[in-house]
Amino acid sequence: MQTIDFKQVTITGGFVKYLQERNERVSIYNVYRRFEETGRFRAMKCVRDDEHRSHIFWDSDVAKWLESAAFILAKTQDAKLKELADAAIADICASQREDGYFNCYFQVYEPENIFKKRTEHELYCAGHLIEAAVALHESGVDEKLLAAMRRYADYIYDRFYVKKDTAFVTCGHPEIELALVKLYQTTGEKKYLDLADFFIEERGKHSEEGYPNMNPSYHLDHVPVREMKTAEGHAVRALYLYIAMADVARIKGDAQLAEVCRTLFADIVNKKMYITGGVGSSYHGEAFTFAYDLPNNTAYSETCAAIALALFCDRLAKIENRAEYHAVFERAFYNNILAGESKDGKGFFYVNPLEMHEAGYDYNEWLRTKLFYPIPERVEVFDCSCCPPNLTRTIESIGSYIYGTEGDQVYVNQYISSETSIGGAKICIDSEMPFGGRATVRVEGQANLNLRVPAWNGGVRMKVNGRTQQPCIADGYIRLACDGDIEIALDFVIKPRFVYANENVWQDCGRKAVEYGPLVLCAESADNGKNLRDVRIRSLAGAKAANGEYFTLDVKAERLHTSEALYSYEAPKTEACTLRLIPYFQWANRGKGDMQIWFL
Amino acid sequence: MQTIDFKQVTITGGFVKYLQERNERVSIYNVYRRFEETGRFRAMKCVRDDEHRSHIFWDSDVAKWLESAAFILAKTQDAKLKELADAAIADICASQREDGYFNCYFQVYEPENIFKKRTEHELYCAGHLIEAAVALHESGVDEKLLAAMRRYADYIYDRFYVKKDTAFVTCGHPEIELALVKLYQTTGEKKYLDLADFFIEERGKHSEEGYPNMNPSYHLDHVPVREMKTAEGHAVRALYLYIAMADVARIKGDAQLAEVCRTLFADIVNKKMYITGGVGSSYHGEAFTFAYDLPNNTAYSETCAAIALALFCDRLAKIENRAEYHAVFERAFYNNILAGESKDGKGFFYVNPLEMHEAGYDYNEWLRTKLFYPIPERVEVFDCSCCPPNLTRTIESIGSYIYGTEGDQVYVNQYISSETSIGGAKICIDSEMPFGGRATVRVEGQANLNLRVPAWNGGVRMKVNGRTQQPCIADGYIRLACDGDIEIALDFVIKPRFVYANENVWQDCGRKAVEYGPLVLCAESADNGKNLRDVRIRSLAGAKAANGEYFTLDVKAERLHTSEALYSYEAPKTEACTLRLIPYFQWANRGKGDMQIWFL
Repeated sequence: MQTIDFKQVTITGGFVKYLQERNERVSIYNVYRRFEETGRFRAMKCVRDDEHRSHIFWDSDVAKWLESAAFILAKTQDAKLKELADAAIADICASQREDGYFNCYFQVYEPENIFKKRTEHELYCAGHLIEAAVALHESGVDEKLLAAMRRYADYIYDRFYVKKDTAFVTCGHPEIELALVKLYQTTGEKKYLDLADFFIEERGKHSEEGYPNMNPSYHLDHVPVREMKTAEGHAVRALYLYIAMADVARIKGDAQLAEVCRTLFADIVNKKMYITGGVGSSYHGEAFTFAYDLPNNTAYSETCAAIALALFCDRLAKIENRAEYHAVFERAFYNNILAGESKDGKGFFYVNPLEMHEAGYDYNEWLRTKLFYPIPERVEVFDCSCCPPNLTRTIESIGSYIYGTEGDQVYVNQYISSETSIGGAKICIDSEMPFGGRATVRVEGQANLNLRVPAWNGGVRMKVNGRTQQPCIADGYIRLACDGDIEIALDFVIKPRFVYANENVWQDCGRKAVEYGPLVLCAESADNGKNLRDVRIRSLAGAKAANGEYFTLDVKAERLHTSEALYSYEAPKTEACTLRLIPYFQWANRGKGDMQIWFL
Repeated sequence: MQTIDFKQVTITGGFVKYLQERNERVSIYNVYRRFEETGRFRAMKCVRDDEHRSHIFWDSDVAKWLESAAFILAKTQDAKLKELADAAIADICASQREDGYFNCYFQVYEPENIFKKRTEHELYCAGHLIEAAVALHESGVDEKLLAAMRRYADYIYDRFYVKKDTAFVTCGHPEIELALVKLYQTTGEKKYLDLADFFIEERGKHSEEGYPNMNPSYHLDHVPVREMKTAEGHAVRALYLYIAMADVARIKGDAQLAEVCRTLFADIVNKKMYITGGVGSSYHGEAFTFAYDLPNNTAYSETCAAIALALFCDRLAKIENRAEYHAVFERAFYNNILAGESKDGKGFFYVNPLEMHEAGYDYNEWLRTKLFYPIPERVEVFDCSCCPPNLTRTIESIGSYIYGTEGDQVYVNQYISSETSIGGAKICIDSEMPFGGRATVRVEGQANLNLRVPAWNGGVRMKVNGRTQQPCIADGYIRLACDGDIEIALDFVIKPRFVYANENVWQDCGRKAVEYGPLVLCAESADNGKNLRDVRIRSLAGAKAANGEYFTLDVKAERLHTSEALYSYEAPKTEACTLRLIPYFQWANRGKGDMQIWFL
């Protein structure tokens, strides 16, 4: 399947338009401000600054911000944003070495170690700069950075692929691979694809430098990629690599590599994914752990990892379209990814726990600072601030994941209010999602439509030009040949539903979550007080949904109350109560407190 | 209440006799062998050994072994054991410095730092050596070590109390305080009590050296002892201090200090104690954490901490007797403490989790080695091997916790088959505990008996000289004036019972444990396969107890089974099963596997 790029898609209203407007008005500027204050933008000048010494990954922070700006500037005429972007681009280009190399840390603080430390993110940073350059070019915003980054890519090609004179073969943090594929697609220059292919295939075949006390899977060195059978190691690194593997498999028609990607995807979604679409169960190594290990209160579920999972879904769908890929994309987007940002667009979560106990948080000061433990409130910037600009670029480019084509088939994969033209047809979607299940799809012209049926639906009702019609569903899509103007009114009935985790997920045994359409719901102290683990929901009958400042679902529940004693022979008494649930992605916007997804 | 020392008590049979025989035949020698192999005994010669470089706490390991040997030699004529003990004593005495100082690490490797590093256990080691010396003297085994340790104590008194020329005031790890009280009680020398008092009262009043990144409570420096209101910090350090505080409060009649001890005890047993009597919820700092934080799978519950809690109970009962102290002692002894040793008497647990997931264990290699994470199998020796000799000395001296007197009242606090003489009366106990609830108490002579009624009993039946008699129960004791020979047949009816944790213990919400008399039961994979978190017990009706190689209780239960999917809208199906429970203390004797205490 080919997807329709967001630049050919107009977001016309609804929830995603709200998200993008917040992003354009608030987030992009607030991320800029905090990056500027912390020295990241000044660092692009490559001048020693002992007060704000560069970090090894600052290039990538600025690059993802530039990529976000490119996506915004593709559709708005925000002169102020353009000016900020131009200044950063100018600094990077001016600081780039004659030979093409650019890195704001190594050039200034460790020039003697350029391409000597594979754990220090040099090629990762290069990858994000290349992605930014491609985005700026594709958005018609800037050509200078692309020219500069082609020179850098040529330099990398020369040193790693031709001369092989570097101290390592593959970067500790994958990213360059997927960026080189983009550069190849934009420039048509095959050497970039060859280099991506080289970095992918060489991985796991050398005994290279890693962090002490870390499993080789942390750097994805545990095995050559074609022998990978399970998702292992640092979740973001793993998924960035899988994305590139899927890209190369598709471009080169490599069936074996595509099958590896499908196997890894199956391992993730069947054994290692939170109900929120989050991945990476452990803060130790920010890593995938073992099958069915999905602790809620210590979930790592990095925002970047959920974004990477969504991108991997997109790449798999491009190899061979399956409704499941879009269902996982939807789960990750409306739950883990969106939870990464505060309601005001200023704060961000790096770690996205599925359960919060404020008492534990208050106690674990040491754990938090040392080990990136879950925190109950979003912050504006992190020392390692990869997630905020990853969110801004994702929200801005979400239009890319709505439509697709394959031969003469047209796919609607996400119900996001938008319009586009495919072939001769114009398609408009007007959707209530994620808070409602109704969507109208209007087509002008001819198209063989395939409308995805969300797995969460409680029954599909369809009217075509006002007349009820029984949908023809195959492989998770409603198929409908449209010829001439047509209006399809879809109602994917939303019933709040219990979700049960597999019996092997010991952290969720005997518990259930509540979903409302694509949304995973949670309860917070702000509505429900403390001790949310003690709440039992026996039935969702009579649950009342309401859409105010927050979407809310009020359900009948009961609380277990015990005697004062620490241990007692008396069974707890139950007290009837109304439990207010809100979407998980909206949690932690009303001060600190407890939060719960899995109930008795 | 005054307790009757174990040397005046003969263990006559039953479970504790079995434990002691195993201890005398196997454990004491196996601990010796592993301590010898690892260099601990040779280290007492204070000769540099670069292959087996001493650790700072090795003196205490040998000291606790010597104390155990003293307790054994008080009743057996084990010539071989005597020889091993004599050799160690001779080495210590020969290595002791002229001025009285002794430390196998500092004398050899850092003589320039003697009494300069408060975090390095010097006074802690001195304390254990003093305890060993007192035990050897009281057991009639040896006088040399007591003479040597008096000289050492005098040296400590001189430097810390008189000259105050040391780099610190109090030791990072309490222990010296309680040892000095014992030395005072044995020698009658008041300066040792004064020194104990000094170390207790000065604590928390100075800004002293601690470990970086550790809360001051780790070394019990967070507050002066009289201001302590909650149990904080490293659990063993805290409890060793509390024991000494209770000792001094009793000896000096200090009501305020006694009240502090009672407040700390209440905080522990009402908010911070596992159902097994374990304390210290976190491996970070081996510490008490916050109220109701009792994670099962990551429980630290160090064996030494449960022993220390039992000793604290004993000291509190000596201030003012309360049945609750003996109930907590019993809980800690029959559950957490005994779980510390393997069935064959050779292996030991340092950490005693209340839940084990083998899959998690297999994965967490890194966590285990770095952070002393729970392991599913006992080992013979640890790098820091404090627990094994602490267990051997505790099992051997358990007779001290059975009987007590207060004025003309005689107390039977634990039903352990034994006999003793108190005043003019001879008392014999013949008991089934912990596996049964019946006990016979025979008295020859006159005594005002107080027989503790265990809180777990499901009804008390009593016959006096064969005739049923309604027991007169007050404050948790059956009161009975005996004059002449009398036989009291007690039956504390044991019914398997559900226990519920307080609603604030979020890890146990919606779950229940099963107790059988004083025993907390658990299920293991060896009997029940995997996925024990999915097991629901609705009722204990029809539960069948049996006493074979293991005590077993078979109960009707059901397992929850889900579809293969990671998440599903289908509620799990239930499958009836028989769940075999065994005493928690017997877990992990049949290979690795899962273990569960709290069930749905």
